[in-house]
Amino acid sequence: MNHFFKNHKRLTSTFNIFGSSNFSKRSRALFSSFASDLLEPDSWKSMEGLVRCKANYVPLSPISFLERSATVYRERTSVIYGSLKFTWAETHQRCLKLASALSQLGISRGDVVAVLAPNVPAMYELHFAVPMAGAVFCTLNTRHDSNMVSILLKHSEAKIIFVDHQLLDIARGALDLLEKTGTKPPMVVLISESDGSSPTVSSSSSYEYESLLANGHSGFEIRQPESEWDPISVNYTSGTTSSPKGVVYSHRGAYLNTLATLFLHGIGTMPVYLWTVPMFHCNGWCLTWGMAAQGGTNVCLRKVTPKDIFDRIDQHKVTHMAGAPTVLSMIVNSEVRDRKILPHKVEIMTGGAPPPPQIFFKMEELGFGVSQLYGLTETYGPGTYCSWKPEWDSLPLDERLKMKARQGVQHLGLEDVDIKDPVTMESVPADGKTIGEIMFRGNTVMSGYLKDLKATEDAFSGGWFRSGDLAVKHSDGYIEVKDRAKDIVITGGENVCTLEVETVLYNHPAILEAAVVGRPDDFWGQTPCAFVKLKEGFDVDAQDIIMFCKDHLPHYMAPKTVVFEDLPRNSTGKVQKFILREKAKALPL
Amino acid sequence: MNHFFKNHKRLTSTFNIFGSSNFSKRSRALFSSFASDLLEPDSWKSMEGLVRCKANYVPLSPISFLERSATVYRERTSVIYGSLKFTWAETHQRCLKLASALSQLGISRGDVVAVLAPNVPAMYELHFAVPMAGAVFCTLNTRHDSNMVSILLKHSEAKIIFVDHQLLDIARGALDLLEKTGTKPPMVVLISESDGSSPTVSSSSSYEYESLLANGHSGFEIRQPESEWDPISVNYTSGTTSSPKGVVYSHRGAYLNTLATLFLHGIGTMPVYLWTVPMFHCNGWCLTWGMAAQGGTNVCLRKVTPKDIFDRIDQHKVTHMAGAPTVLSMIVNSEVRDRKILPHKVEIMTGGAPPPPQIFFKMEELGFGVSQLYGLTETYGPGTYCSWKPEWDSLPLDERLKMKARQGVQHLGLEDVDIKDPVTMESVPADGKTIGEIMFRGNTVMSGYLKDLKATEDAFSGGWFRSGDLAVKHSDGYIEVKDRAKDIVITGGENVCTLEVETVLYNHPAILEAAVVGRPDDFWGQTPCAFVKLKEGFDVDAQDIIMFCKDHLPHYMAPKTVVFEDLPRNSTGKVQKFILREKAKALPL
Repeated sequence: MNHFFKNHKRLTSTFNIFGSSNFSKRSRALFSSFASDLLEPDSWKSMEGLVRCKANYVPLSPISFLERSATVYRERTSVIYGSLKFTWAETHQRCLKLASALSQLGISRGDVVAVLAPNVPAMYELHFAVPMAGAVFCTLNTRHDSNMVSILLKHSEAKIIFVDHQLLDIARGALDLLEKTGTKPPMVVLISESDGSSPTVSSSSSYEYESLLANGHSGFEIRQPESEWDPISVNYTSGTTSSPKGVVYSHRGAYLNTLATLFLHGIGTMPVYLWTVPMFHCNGWCLTWGMAAQGGTNVCLRKVTPKDIFDRIDQHKVTHMAGAPTVLSMIVNSEVRDRKILPHKVEIMTGGAPPPPQIFFKMEELGFGVSQLYGLTETYGPGTYCSWKPEWDSLPLDERLKMKARQGVQHLGLEDVDIKDPVTMESVPADGKTIGEIMFRGNTVMSGYLKDLKATEDAFSGGWFRSGDLAVKHSDGYIEVKDRAKDIVITGGENVCTLEVETVLYNHPAILEAAVVGRPDDFWGQTPCAFVKLKEGFDVDAQDIIMFCKDHLPHYMAPKTVVFEDLPRNSTGKVQKFILREKAKALPL
Repeated sequence: MNHFFKNHKRLTSTFNIFGSSNFSKRSRALFSSFASDLLEPDSWKSMEGLVRCKANYVPLSPISFLERSATVYRERTSVIYGSLKFTWAETHQRCLKLASALSQLGISRGDVVAVLAPNVPAMYELHFAVPMAGAVFCTLNTRHDSNMVSILLKHSEAKIIFVDHQLLDIARGALDLLEKTGTKPPMVVLISESDGSSPTVSSSSSYEYESLLANGHSGFEIRQPESEWDPISVNYTSGTTSSPKGVVYSHRGAYLNTLATLFLHGIGTMPVYLWTVPMFHCNGWCLTWGMAAQGGTNVCLRKVTPKDIFDRIDQHKVTHMAGAPTVLSMIVNSEVRDRKILPHKVEIMTGGAPPPPQIFFKMEELGFGVSQLYGLTETYGPGTYCSWKPEWDSLPLDERLKMKARQGVQHLGLEDVDIKDPVTMESVPADGKTIGEIMFRGNTVMSGYLKDLKATEDAFSGGWFRSGDLAVKHSDGYIEVKDRAKDIVITGGENVCTLEVETVLYNHPAILEAAVVGRPDDFWGQTPCAFVKLKEGFDVDAQDIIMFCKDHLPHYMAPKTVVFEDLPRNSTGKVQKFILREKAKALPL
């Protein structure tokens, strides 16, 4: 022991006595191993005496969050799914084994690994295991059909696809299609239900998730990114046969957006997070990684129902959750028998589409704290949020709701958000009226669209990311989304922001859901056409609704046509206006 | 207006229709300006279709925090000092003007700008204005004498020094010394008291802070770092005439450590922060920048007294503060008439030296929530912290205090902290007993020692930053500091951790302050020697204290000598053991 300190004293003396005597030989010996750790030794230096090496440089990556949680939060619950529970130490071990198993299957740096699964534990683990194997994680929307899945597998060149047992038919269909077109299909790993109730693997080319994981080694050496710019995931925003848009995230961007999202959602240490946002959507708005950063508990849900939401909140004391406005709508319109008194205020972030203002109020009555964020897949999900000011608490309800309905200001990870004229690139005046395009700039903007340099360059032209969304900027700098650029209706030379019309429609006591699109018109060019779903037990006609709108809007903005039907929505809750536009076009004169 | 949308529609169509018709010409035109924004276009790419440009890459820098606060928190109070108050919009404007003024004085990229000032508003503003001018900020310890200041000005080659009016004599002395040695002294900017009570500028080479700032332009274009590795500040940890150690921070490290410190201190949006940590110490543990990140209010204090602390907490509803154990000691030993009931729990972080465990309990009785952190100037201040587990709340008091006294786990910004044998670089077992050296690895470790490559290389040898501090690792992964390597006492072949002896001494009812060092001894090599300050009204002798230690420690650890006197401390509250070692050496036999 004393020997140790004698050596130690000699060693540490180099901290204080420069160029000291007989120690220097040992120091040099240690330094020779150090020298090989030096990275880009010269180009970045602007002052003498500095070095960049393993001691002071690590590529930013969310993988670090899990490694840290394995120490700091080792015995805390990481994942809950039904009766299944893991600790952070266990999740860490499982991810290492899974990464090892992927590597044994031949996955190497930069390979794409896809998944088709709801928010089950395997989906969570893959968010770490795939990058830990050096690979790129591609989450597929669970509402895709076999055709779309085959297109995206082909485009991404995925080597493996993990498939939830309930989605196996879709995956099989996709693989058949790939084989028919002569494309080598990826290996399949089946994610069974944890209670063993799901089908077993039949094909010889297939694996089962838990068996695969069991074959991995927990001593696996993580393949850290060589550069923090290495891709960590690819998220497809939309896809047609001709041009799937695969948004590529880097380790750096994922790390920074995770921290920014934690800040904007006010997520402190050891939160309990209910997974009502699909993890396949922007990697769960980056909070898959965020829960590891804060040692949180991931409450996984296969399917989102109001009863499940209230039950899980009650059982696990959920502190935070998030979701598209449809999730909020589901909650406020839930059966009273499915509801439970909340154990405390549950903070919920909503985004994906601007919710009708009234929904904020109803959610707060139920005990939720609702905040709004705005972003796109291209901004790693969250980009701006309505940062709340204490003085707004005392505003009258309608003023307060107006404030809540704004999309606000950029989060901590973004350099800038601006509303610009897309042609001149001039900022619009902060007058709350002048419409321009929302543009982003900063480290939490995507690396680009996979294999589509042209689309990437167009999206970044002028040095900003062009969102394609239209907004105004208020005098306090807060932005308010008005419409998608392609959704605006021009009638008789006037611009109609369909969101404004929809907000009025949502104020109508009989209306449950509403969406407005342009209907082609020989005289006006276009006229506003409303698609409306009524609440149960209500009965109003088109004329009632048109008159209601005329009472609350300039007349040219009121719909000329009202169609009663359910609204088509995509998996993230957005109304699919392109379908409604086709319907409006096909309406009889 | 409609013209705008027609153009707009054409433009945004490129988001959806690839390679579309007559728009592409305009798109190309825009792109040509974009092409020049491309940074390192190829080397980092590992997938096709990606680019790195101004839209998705900005060097990480705390400057971003201020720019964002100028929008998000524009009308919130940024700085309070006596009757002086600024908003974030004003602070932003003032920093721009100051940066502009610096640039007018000839400051260019990479130049060093020094400051000698307590925690006054100018000190806060300089933390942004200097980097905004592209320069490197060097904060000098206000307890330095003219000789040390002259050495550090010479070593750093500072072009300007900002000096608080109360420290003008020290600065003038330093400048005289520089002139005597033929070194061109820096320009001086006098920081007057805001009420105009301070002396005016006499020398023709000098400027006054407010007048200088008034001459700057708020339209100044910020000189963003060219690389996030550019230095943002230099912090001297110690200095002798032969080898001042200037620890260099990068913009990247400062950005990341700021976020990590906000997380570890649990600082949410819009905190009120009382400046009881000197901003010249690790740039205020990076929370100078952190307050801008969260739109906090900086409550500035020229001098830290118990009365001022309680008054400011009461008046401004302070939420967070920090300080060396001396600040805690000052609070718990304060006169009852100076105290006030806290408006809410005030979170206080302590670090710099491990505080005696009892102090946590006394602080909590007064209404403070105390957490401990550990770090060094080389780790941007905070590096590890005692992340508290809810289950520890129910432990018996002495167990709870034991937990509180540990230095814990690495914060979110560090990759790893380990306790290693400094010779073999093996991790020590997590047994709570085996002592090793604390080593750090990650992005929040310094870039190196200014102009001392040898010292930098020694500090990083083996690919870790070697702290020179000794610690054990407990079975739960939490570390506990035992001593500085150079402070350990070896007596008769046994190692004595002086901190353990000091903890026992602090348990003695008569002892206010205690420090133990080694005293040279012909027979034992060294023996433990205690320096002790008694509480007022107490009277005990050396033998009492030695017996008390023998009752609570192995006999060889008990002091053989006890000296009664005030302890010499440096400006951050650390006991200056090198002075005590000299005294112990000089004691009569």
